[in-house]
Amino acid sequence: MSEISKGLENVFIKATSLTYVDGEEGVLRYEGYDINDLVNHCSFEEVIHLMLYGDLPTKEKLAEVKNRLNQSYSVPSSVIRIMEDLPHNAEAISMMETAFGGLSCFYGVPWDKAKNKERAIEIIAKAATVTANVYRIKEGLKPRIPDPSDSYVESFLEATFSRRPSEKEIAAMNAALILYTDHEVPASTTAALVASSTLSDMYSCIVAALAALKGPLHGGAAEAAYQQFKEIEEPDNVEKWFNEKVIAGKKRLMGFGHRVYKTYDPRSKIFKNYAMKLANGENRKYLDIAIKLEELGLKEFSKRGIYPNVDFYSGIVFSSLGFPDYMFTPLFALARTLGWLAHIIEYVEEQHRLIRPRALYIGPEKRDYIPLDVRQ
Amino acid sequence: MSEISKGLENVFIKATSLTYVDGEEGVLRYEGYDINDLVNHCSFEEVIHLMLYGDLPTKEKLAEVKNRLNQSYSVPSSVIRIMEDLPHNAEAISMMETAFGGLSCFYGVPWDKAKNKERAIEIIAKAATVTANVYRIKEGLKPRIPDPSDSYVESFLEATFSRRPSEKEIAAMNAALILYTDHEVPASTTAALVASSTLSDMYSCIVAALAALKGPLHGGAAEAAYQQFKEIEEPDNVEKWFNEKVIAGKKRLMGFGHRVYKTYDPRSKIFKNYAMKLANGENRKYLDIAIKLEELGLKEFSKRGIYPNVDFYSGIVFSSLGFPDYMFTPLFALARTLGWLAHIIEYVEEQHRLIRPRALYIGPEKRDYIPLDVRQ
Repeated sequence: MSEISKGLENVFIKATSLTYVDGEEGVLRYEGYDINDLVNHCSFEEVIHLMLYGDLPTKEKLAEVKNRLNQSYSVPSSVIRIMEDLPHNAEAISMMETAFGGLSCFYGVPWDKAKNKERAIEIIAKAATVTANVYRIKEGLKPRIPDPSDSYVESFLEATFSRRPSEKEIAAMNAALILYTDHEVPASTTAALVASSTLSDMYSCIVAALAALKGPLHGGAAEAAYQQFKEIEEPDNVEKWFNEKVIAGKKRLMGFGHRVYKTYDPRSKIFKNYAMKLANGENRKYLDIAIKLEELGLKEFSKRGIYPNVDFYSGIVFSSLGFPDYMFTPLFALARTLGWLAHIIEYVEEQHRLIRPRALYIGPEKRDYIPLDVRQ
Repeated sequence: MSEISKGLENVFIKATSLTYVDGEEGVLRYEGYDINDLVNHCSFEEVIHLMLYGDLPTKEKLAEVKNRLNQSYSVPSSVIRIMEDLPHNAEAISMMETAFGGLSCFYGVPWDKAKNKERAIEIIAKAATVTANVYRIKEGLKPRIPDPSDSYVESFLEATFSRRPSEKEIAAMNAALILYTDHEVPASTTAALVASSTLSDMYSCIVAALAALKGPLHGGAAEAAYQQFKEIEEPDNVEKWFNEKVIAGKKRLMGFGHRVYKTYDPRSKIFKNYAMKLANGENRKYLDIAIKLEELGLKEFSKRGIYPNVDFYSGIVFSSLGFPDYMFTPLFALARTLGWLAHIIEYVEEQHRLIRPRALYIGPEKRDYIPLDVRQ
């Protein structure tokens, strides 16, 4: 069985200029730019340009990106109706799968090198519409298409909550989108690549990515980490909970550990900063809980290379922005749509080959057919 | 770049007892049974049992499979409404993606070893409902849920065409489903595996597979082969067309060649037999064209190991059963749903590991941030 590449671990499925991860040093860069620089200085639109075109935009190019986003928030009314027709207690990511399936019925066209990147920007706009309306429909609100505005984040937040977001909220959401934009080739990106390798349309590739993201081993970690803080309830309970559940009970500490990072995930520190700036209401308590839990987790696990990851503090930020827990994974998906698109464009345009691995046969030798009447 | 496993060629993503392919000898077996035996003697329901439980069923077990299928054709009315609400000229596979996304909203539940296989049978029943109604909706017919009957094929064909199929039609459709049931791990199966590796629900795994199947390099081959016969129009045109397009024009001969088979794909011969039994109307002409084209193709390409594949004659069979060209890929999907489910169950229950390959970084070194105002 040694021929099997279990989990495709250490198999290189493609080359990339998009994302550089140094798991030993805790470094993350997009196209050579450090994640801290991008979060501190850039709008998500600049990162869209960076990931699709390989460099930060000039003012003119940035205006083009913003313009195309502003022109592309609309979706066919039947896609909204479809979302409304789904059970409102359905998992949010399944609703997104369905909506993107619907979008592929309308907009799924063959790949075209002259248009792929512009189409990707349109898809990112429509992803905001889908994500905002997953929230609105689940909350029983009237669906709403984002209005054009000065920024993607503003259009998205205003459509979601029917109110103008504050500068602080815009900054935090902008940071969150950049932080979740890409992380090389986890399962969701791999699913998108596999679909793109058959030259399936870009919307369908996003559908495949969403289907993979839905699994609790991938997309659900921020929600699970946040549930933990809720379960602990009070900062005074942290130590008891940690000793009982994690140490004695061997329960996995959610939001800790990563297959690549063996030190601090740099995204975790940034989310912590935003959580400290933004936490409101119950979230102030959850932040205290998280900080205490981090301390205990580090004491116990850092010697084994297990540190807080991107999902540890992100739920507190999302919740402080007004999102219910079930939206954490859709927000991950919204940001990652850019990463998925950038990877499949890189793959199809520069490295394309149909993905067709093998399976090692371990089944029975040739068997003779036995008629139904005499089978035991 | 030699570290990159392009297209994952010769990477073993899993072990399997399901399908054995000998590309040199032209042998295909499911769980040890030769594809010819299965097509000649078995119902699709027996193959369902074989793929899910590892052996052909006894009479009692076969009755259980049929019973569960008969109880599971229904889908929520909103899933039918969703399909009706899509543009009727949309690609059929995108409609299936959307419908399965909707089903995942209703039925997507966590994996459970005690129930996975029974659920798989339910999904196969619902796949018949979705596939029949892709046809009905695109044709402007009233949606219809398959009725329980003595066989899956009969229920499916009767729901599709609103008439009782003949014995000959049932036999051909039964054979087609068995022939397309599984073929190791092509892109669609790989996409399903990637989704299953995050423990995403089984419906979402089918969504991922459909998204990959949609690409013209994977699911569209039967339709493309059939288009070729239509384009040639008359048997007398074959030689001229072949010389002009394929020899001089270097156009790819569709329905020929396979990454695994270097001789006759055994499925191709079986489909040819059914095409000869079943071809009606225009299809008699297309069959003559196909036979002549096969002869020329073999003369030219067999020395390079390029032979007719499963898709060369299947379109003539499907068309003779009454299906328009756009249904060929959905019929592939209907049959392959069993293969996808059998592979993900095998993976999750026996070999599970999160699929997370790597990407080789070839991008820029660390770059310093440049403010927007001074970017060139």
